[in-house]
Amino acid sequence: MTEADSRFMRLALGLAGRGLGNVWPNPAVGCVIVNEERIVGRGWTQPGGRPHAERRALDQAGAAARGATAYVTLEPCAHHGKTPPCAEALISAGVARVVSAMEDPDPRVSGRGHAMLRAAGISVQTGVLEAEARAAQAGFLSRIEKGRPWLALKLGASFDGRIALANGESQWITGPQARAHVQALRARFDAVLVGGGTARADDPLLTVRSFTPLRAPVRVVASRRLDLPRGRLAGSVGQAPLWLVHGVEAPEAARDFWAGVGAELIEAPAGETGLDPMALMAALAARGLTRVFCEGGGQFAASLMAAGLVDELIGFTAGVVLGGDAKPGIGDLGVSRLSDAPRYQLASVQPMGEDVLARWLRA
Amino acid sequence: MTEADSRFMRLALGLAGRGLGNVWPNPAVGCVIVNEERIVGRGWTQPGGRPHAERRALDQAGAAARGATAYVTLEPCAHHGKTPPCAEALISAGVARVVSAMEDPDPRVSGRGHAMLRAAGISVQTGVLEAEARAAQAGFLSRIEKGRPWLALKLGASFDGRIALANGESQWITGPQARAHVQALRARFDAVLVGGGTARADDPLLTVRSFTPLRAPVRVVASRRLDLPRGRLAGSVGQAPLWLVHGVEAPEAARDFWAGVGAELIEAPAGETGLDPMALMAALAARGLTRVFCEGGGQFAASLMAAGLVDELIGFTAGVVLGGDAKPGIGDLGVSRLSDAPRYQLASVQPMGEDVLARWLRA
Repeated sequence: MTEADSRFMRLALGLAGRGLGNVWPNPAVGCVIVNEERIVGRGWTQPGGRPHAERRALDQAGAAARGATAYVTLEPCAHHGKTPPCAEALISAGVARVVSAMEDPDPRVSGRGHAMLRAAGISVQTGVLEAEARAAQAGFLSRIEKGRPWLALKLGASFDGRIALANGESQWITGPQARAHVQALRARFDAVLVGGGTARADDPLLTVRSFTPLRAPVRVVASRRLDLPRGRLAGSVGQAPLWLVHGVEAPEAARDFWAGVGAELIEAPAGETGLDPMALMAALAARGLTRVFCEGGGQFAASLMAAGLVDELIGFTAGVVLGGDAKPGIGDLGVSRLSDAPRYQLASVQPMGEDVLARWLRA
Repeated sequence: MTEADSRFMRLALGLAGRGLGNVWPNPAVGCVIVNEERIVGRGWTQPGGRPHAERRALDQAGAAARGATAYVTLEPCAHHGKTPPCAEALISAGVARVVSAMEDPDPRVSGRGHAMLRAAGISVQTGVLEAEARAAQAGFLSRIEKGRPWLALKLGASFDGRIALANGESQWITGPQARAHVQALRARFDAVLVGGGTARADDPLLTVRSFTPLRAPVRVVASRRLDLPRGRLAGSVGQAPLWLVHGVEAPEAARDFWAGVGAELIEAPAGETGLDPMALMAALAARGLTRVFCEGGGQFAASLMAAGLVDELIGFTAGVVLGGDAKPGIGDLGVSRLSDAPRYQLASVQPMGEDVLARWLRA
């Protein structure tokens, strides 16, 4: 790997990030085409997942793609889907060399893209900034490799980790900048997820309102019995998709009501205390979601945490103290030894308006 | 205020900070003596509270003090204590001008220092960087103006605000760098304070062990009935002072035991649930403490918080999740409206090893 290779790949990874939240079920890929040290094409996966990054970069490069090097953050696709495969497009354009960050674990690709390129006489180098590429494409990889989306859990809490008073009052603990940032974060995820308890308590819209996202994140509510308030959520299906994951015991009348307002109903198996967390995540992955942003509540978050499904913690901490009788941000976990408690590594920390924002990734 | 005045005062404030934790009951003062733009003397209050900053700076300046400007972070003292007053020393040294950040609210000084200087023909300017000086000397000011020490509450907690598992296990939630930093913080305070619950649960040493402090912080344990474990705390009085604040109902035998091992016993009034928090703080101020660092536990912290006595929050947050059934860092507060909850402003936030350290000051 030359210094130039890693520099152009880093640029491609930056472009790839632009697709986060609006390309599911596809991966958010970036592509840079370089001819004699000059960048002649840049592309990233477009909203809805098409065109692919390579197609966009090739279109921009035009004839300059001939003899050039293409940097891609993921192995180019080799299968005919709704568009011809990118490997074929790179070959047709006369690209001389392809540098890719990693092989695509999707069984429809899985080395075939690189093989097609090599068979056409193109020089292929893989594994350039692979760790960074895996981190950038963690949602897509989780869906393919684990059968579930990447799951981030957000907590907007007091200094002492509380998300509401005992009487339920929670507006507002964090400040306006933190709340605006939450809306920006929603747009970087495929879906926003809450448990039925939060939906009943707050009847939240869960939409992105401070700006218009390229693609509105799906709102997902997990509610075993579909006993949800029929207010703001029910009236907002035109603004963003609403998926309701429920158990077999959800009454027919509730199903009819929610289907009637345009929600998509997803039946999933339930355990003793609620929907099975892994079955819930698997159902979301099966429908194409790669990145899910969970916004509580405490008991629902605890069930996801206990099942080992939380990949990332996003904590907004306010300078207010609510006390031990206020509602905890994460419900009971029954941890009996500290060494058994889920551990996360600090990814970043910064002031966010009057609050603190810290991101942690699973250790 | 000229640019030079604020620059030299800022330097004096930096020197003043060196005294924090080891000069009680005196204020931590800094002094810079400047003759023709050249710094000829620097001083700060010495461990134990004497010599004063001005005395040290004058000794360093020697003959160069004649005609010079002295920058002091607090009005020079005017009363004969164990040493002659600093105002007198500045006059004798022939200083031409004194720039002071603020008047000393101590009733024994309270303008008399400045008046003495002026009466001797010295030009006196006050109020230079007064806000910064008030912040730097907050402990001393709190003791004089409110009759209680400045109180910082430290929490070493999980992402979700828990300080121990339900079974009490708490070693370790935060990492080695955070724990070493806690020892450094202890040395910047006059005293370390815990409630009886924490003393019973952990029998903590509460000493500074990772380095030798200039003056060991006093260990203070608040225990209404003096029902404390007779282990490490009892065996460590040679390492650092141990003050036990108890109620009238503490049994004679317990008092005798603790007096026997060298602890200082302080009787204070109790309310229904424990020692009266303000009476406890007043007793510490009466004995000279200006800066107190409280390290829990949760119920004790809640009683201080509910009484409005916590000036500063120091939070170490670890990337571990313990759940709602683990022990809260701050006990019940009975807050019924968010607008009534105690609010703090972010002073600083930074990574501390694998954890996050945030400091908040009362809003």
